[in-house]
Amino acid sequence: MAELNFNSQGLIPVITQDATSREVLMMAWMNQESLAKTLEAGRMIYWSRSRQALWAKGETSGHVQLLKSMRIDCDGDAILCLVDQTGAACHTGRSNCFYLQVDLGNQCVTIMSQPQ
Amino acid sequence: MAELNFNSQGLIPVITQDATSREVLMMAWMNQESLAKTLEAGRMIYWSRSRQALWAKGETSGHVQLLKSMRIDCDGDAILCLVDQTGAACHTGRSNCFYLQVDLGNQCVTIMSQPQ
Repeated sequence: MAELNFNSQGLIPVITQDATSREVLMMAWMNQESLAKTLEAGRMIYWSRSRQALWAKGETSGHVQLLKSMRIDCDGDAILCLVDQTGAACHTGRSNCFYLQVDLGNQCVTIMSQPQ
Repeated sequence: MAELNFNSQGLIPVITQDATSREVLMMAWMNQESLAKTLEAGRMIYWSRSRQALWAKGETSGHVQLLKSMRIDCDGDAILCLVDQTGAACHTGRSNCFYLQVDLGNQCVTIMSQPQ
């Protein structure tokens, strides 16, 4: 896939969206190997920057993400994946990782009332 | 907003989603200045990595993005913004930037039939 522009660390950002609810679940990163393995397995396999290792989402928790659709943006430096999420996307047990809400009036951060 | 983790270049990835259709429109970057200006103006002002300058979305095209909601993820290294998009989000005239579809069977890239 020549259209993809990996960054200087060989990584590309990946936005993961629920294919049904259209909720944005999380953002993570892939390298070429994790991308190839994701396409092969049909489920999301990211690159963990903190562990510097492949991160097969849900391998221990069972909260796998089945890949339904993969899209690339106009300049080839971001990937959007639509998935069927089993269980919770976030390690906190929340359905998605974006549960911190910026109060636009007061510019402070509050926690969205999202089930944990 | 102490919760935010900017990268070594002082940038953080921003996912922009249509507040109504829930379509993911684009992914771009912000630095602290562009984030502050976005909150102040109530519309999206990114940091252009190619131009190394503030990028007030829609300034020339008129395709502004009014900020409706801003969320931060669990580890503070990604921002999700829900916006009201005027016109097209993508510079190609398409409604969103993710118009390249990966054919999961053949692992080739096709252009989604999205109006230009």
